[in-house]
Amino acid sequence: MSACKHSRQLNKTSEELHLAESDIVDFSSCLNPTGDPFMFKGSSLDIENLRDIAAAQLKQYPDNRYIELRSAAAHFLGKGIIYNNIIPGNGSCELLRLILECTVKEGDQVIVPVPCPIEYYRSCRIFGAVTQEIELNEMFQLPKRTIEKAKVIILSNPNNPTGKLVSREELSQLASKCAEHQTLLIVDESVIELSDPCQSVADLATGNDHLIVIRSIVNTFALPGIRFSYGIASHAMAELLNSARLSWNIGAVTEAVAKAILNLEGGPDSRYLEESRKFIIKEREYIVERLSSLYGFRPLESSANYILVDMDGHFMDSEKFVKCFETHGILIRDCSDICKGEKRYIRLSVRSREEFEKLIGKLDDVYAESSREAAREKLEETIEHPEKTEAGRGTCSYYPCHFQGQDCTFCFCPFYACEDERTGGFWIDSATGGKVWSCEKCTLMHQPKIAKKVLDVLMEDGDTDENIRKAWKEVITSLI
Amino acid sequence: MSACKHSRQLNKTSEELHLAESDIVDFSSCLNPTGDPFMFKGSSLDIENLRDIAAAQLKQYPDNRYIELRSAAAHFLGKGIIYNNIIPGNGSCELLRLILECTVKEGDQVIVPVPCPIEYYRSCRIFGAVTQEIELNEMFQLPKRTIEKAKVIILSNPNNPTGKLVSREELSQLASKCAEHQTLLIVDESVIELSDPCQSVADLATGNDHLIVIRSIVNTFALPGIRFSYGIASHAMAELLNSARLSWNIGAVTEAVAKAILNLEGGPDSRYLEESRKFIIKEREYIVERLSSLYGFRPLESSANYILVDMDGHFMDSEKFVKCFETHGILIRDCSDICKGEKRYIRLSVRSREEFEKLIGKLDDVYAESSREAAREKLEETIEHPEKTEAGRGTCSYYPCHFQGQDCTFCFCPFYACEDERTGGFWIDSATGGKVWSCEKCTLMHQPKIAKKVLDVLMEDGDTDENIRKAWKEVITSLI
Repeated sequence: MSACKHSRQLNKTSEELHLAESDIVDFSSCLNPTGDPFMFKGSSLDIENLRDIAAAQLKQYPDNRYIELRSAAAHFLGKGIIYNNIIPGNGSCELLRLILECTVKEGDQVIVPVPCPIEYYRSCRIFGAVTQEIELNEMFQLPKRTIEKAKVIILSNPNNPTGKLVSREELSQLASKCAEHQTLLIVDESVIELSDPCQSVADLATGNDHLIVIRSIVNTFALPGIRFSYGIASHAMAELLNSARLSWNIGAVTEAVAKAILNLEGGPDSRYLEESRKFIIKEREYIVERLSSLYGFRPLESSANYILVDMDGHFMDSEKFVKCFETHGILIRDCSDICKGEKRYIRLSVRSREEFEKLIGKLDDVYAESSREAAREKLEETIEHPEKTEAGRGTCSYYPCHFQGQDCTFCFCPFYACEDERTGGFWIDSATGGKVWSCEKCTLMHQPKIAKKVLDVLMEDGDTDENIRKAWKEVITSLI
Repeated sequence: MSACKHSRQLNKTSEELHLAESDIVDFSSCLNPTGDPFMFKGSSLDIENLRDIAAAQLKQYPDNRYIELRSAAAHFLGKGIIYNNIIPGNGSCELLRLILECTVKEGDQVIVPVPCPIEYYRSCRIFGAVTQEIELNEMFQLPKRTIEKAKVIILSNPNNPTGKLVSREELSQLASKCAEHQTLLIVDESVIELSDPCQSVADLATGNDHLIVIRSIVNTFALPGIRFSYGIASHAMAELLNSARLSWNIGAVTEAVAKAILNLEGGPDSRYLEESRKFIIKEREYIVERLSSLYGFRPLESSANYILVDMDGHFMDSEKFVKCFETHGILIRDCSDICKGEKRYIRLSVRSREEFEKLIGKLDDVYAESSREAAREKLEETIEHPEKTEAGRGTCSYYPCHFQGQDCTFCFCPFYACEDERTGGFWIDSATGGKVWSCEKCTLMHQPKIAKKVLDVLMEDGDTDENIRKAWKEVITSLI
């Protein structure tokens, strides 16, 4: 088990790349892309005032019943929810862990959709519960026996990482079925305000002992620096969880910020959140359209502030792709850990047009680097085992990619990208707007004699880079 | 199970008494009585600067490895401890729960000293562990078999609530014995900086997989508004706990404050903490001396910033005593819940001379109110069951407290404190410095004829208070 790495560690990347954190663009976390409400024009929130309150709160034990804070959360939600229904949490993970701590024991079965956040697995594992993975689209047709056998079902709505939003009606039906079979249903609505809060089932939890809803302010209000989420449950369930939670799980400073946020005029219908949703819809559409037009990306339909992208047809796997972008200061969530180990999905959060264009602008660089890297690997293999280079001919499904009788010693050219048009290579426009060096029409390295000469030079003792320069000078320049 | 009530709820008391929170004096929490280090003259901490940093941190996900924070904690402790040994926690309770979550399972035995903080029981109970209570002074002579049978031993040093400090040597021996029998020893050193940090065994934990030490900044630095404690353990144990803890258990704002505090020049030997310890020793001595001189209080020897007081000989039990003080805006910790249910112990934190004198100054009021209340109860009993009033004579061990043949209908006088010297009553000096009404020399209510007449009036229909006034006027004033 290892600590969660999504909303990846800006700090770590910054250290490793010697980049200022402000130069890193983070598509891996799911923060509201419009920024926090303190920055929002027309917001009634006063950050200066809040700073004074927060500083004063340093010296005060919070009221560990957190009545004002819970009342603010209830007020934010409306629909008859009162503070008795609210459980304060130090982030959604703490709430999830608290709920499981109070409900499951070793060997109990917990149903999770696949894919789902890694934290669901972590929390279950800590208490020895066994996770049963069900395809997301099958979650609402679960047979009676499957529900009966499970102690808990965990869902996120919108789903993380796919962004699929389930209707209130469907969830409400599942909640009723769960209650019938005394199976606890946990619905994680951490970012529903950035999707469609009308589909929330928070209010249904007040009258159903087998339904708990989790809401959060962290991502919704772009406030990752404080930890505050809250659970909504029936009086009885909330009372149980409130007595089992840490006596002081929320500091007074956090409490002050959270109270201010939850008292925002209009709640889920505030102008800040409405504008946020409009922004997300517009930019999400743009991202989906743009990515769909590029080779190897299939963005899945999303109703959230993030998009799951299938890279199945891409020549790079998700892990490699994410790693390459990281070296350029762009963080993306590789989802191989939560997608059955398949290295084909990435999750991109919706961010500003400018930031997304920055990502697209880096694609060419990433691809060129990747080709160079592949060439280098192949070259080293060739130098180490020259006897194996012929093998390619018989096994390669692309043979002959240039001409019958071609030499495959250098499947990847050691001189890529030479950028010398005398070789027959030329610049082409890339789909992302930049230029890419194409060597489609250069066959030099596949001519057996040339390949032999180059290999001889490269196999001499000494530095590989120097040998490459030498081979270019001695073998190639005389030919072009 | 119910939420922890020590460091009682200022908010709650404030609501109930309609008192401003600033008018309430809190002897129930254990905060450093000299205030936070930002207020300390000569401290290098700049609260304004910190406010700017904290506000900026709102917008930042913390680095969930918390390397800087853990390094600051390691630096604070010194003695070869490095960040790899540190586990960050959202308060000591979270750490304790995390450790137990990772080590005990249902039915496991956990040894706790008696008395000990209620949280130790709560945490064990949540995981189904069975607590075995051992007298504090027997903890260091535990037979091999007892240690062997236990999965975990939890101790606080200095002990909470007694304030007893165990030497590093004794603890070190116990730690070795525990390691030998693969029993985990958890030493909670939450306030050791306010006692004697030289007795800490934090550094020993780095080389012992079966020792974990908990430290905290909450009470030590009088910062109850943020939640930050940290565990010290071997690399292997710390790695395990860091991977099992919530991925983000500390918000970035809290992290900023904690880092500033832990980087305080001098660490445990900083001038701020040295002055704090001097202040605590001086005021603790004063409180012990003053309380010892009063009837019914036996303060136990303490090396901490709190004192456990035995009220065994007192005419009020601890629960009642604490409740009475609460109505005067003074919060005291009743320890009956952690002292085997015996209502005889209270815990007082060391606070300023002025605040302690305020507490002492209220003693007379509390006693007078308590007598009045007892009188009223007795009176109501008398009015309801006049036939039973004679019974006292035969059964009361104080009979006759005034004269042979006295009437005991009114064991407690319904007119107390009449403050009318014509009755024979008079003012005496109380031990606490105030005045108390003594009716030792008034026998009016014990003369059978008078008692009878008063009872007749009191038994008339109507309001008891009015009847008391009527009885005074009609029966007593004609006699004095």
